[in-house]
Amino acid sequence: MLSIGVLKALASERRLQILQWLRDPAAHFPPQTDGDLERDGVCALFIANKLGVSQPTAAEHLKILAQAGLIEGKRIKQWTFYRRDESRIDEIKQAFRGDW
Amino acid sequence: MLSIGVLKALASERRLQILQWLRDPAAHFPPQTDGDLERDGVCALFIANKLGVSQPTAAEHLKILAQAGLIEGKRIKQWTFYRRDESRIDEIKQAFRGDW
Repeated sequence: MLSIGVLKALASERRLQILQWLRDPAAHFPPQTDGDLERDGVCALFIANKLGVSQPTAAEHLKILAQAGLIEGKRIKQWTFYRRDESRIDEIKQAFRGDW
Repeated sequence: MLSIGVLKALASERRLQILQWLRDPAAHFPPQTDGDLERDGVCALFIANKLGVSQPTAAEHLKILAQAGLIEGKRIKQWTFYRRDESRIDEIKQAFRGDW
């Protein structure tokens, strides 16, 4: 069964771009002081900067991705770090292989 | 590579519903006078009626699905009949199995 929430979350160039960057954080983002790129994910500020959008705009995209379960956020100090939820993404791929 | 056009086309309850009905037209629609349900597809009027929406609203949904390549339309007399493009849908499923 396809999830409308997932489809809407994916139906955006910027959100697909974020997901792609998060597949290999070290290839796309500089090292971070307060969170490890691989373990903790990428700071929302870095994502906003790389997208070339304001922090609130990036935050909205990240919220949509997180609500669909595609990424998960982790708070460290005043920052939020995001990484992909690969097991959820695998479930979504599985759902897409089914009948629709 | 995921297609934004396809994702946007799928990100709608009504359009997913149409796609599902078109998987087995005879199970969901009455026989038609001017076009065979299986060979020619389902008349847009029947789809509008079953969705419970106006003809222009249904036409817009069908246009979006057709532009994404998910369905194809066939003109017979003054009617347009729609059926799924299964080979295109298989290609889309394949793309979803790849990396994104």
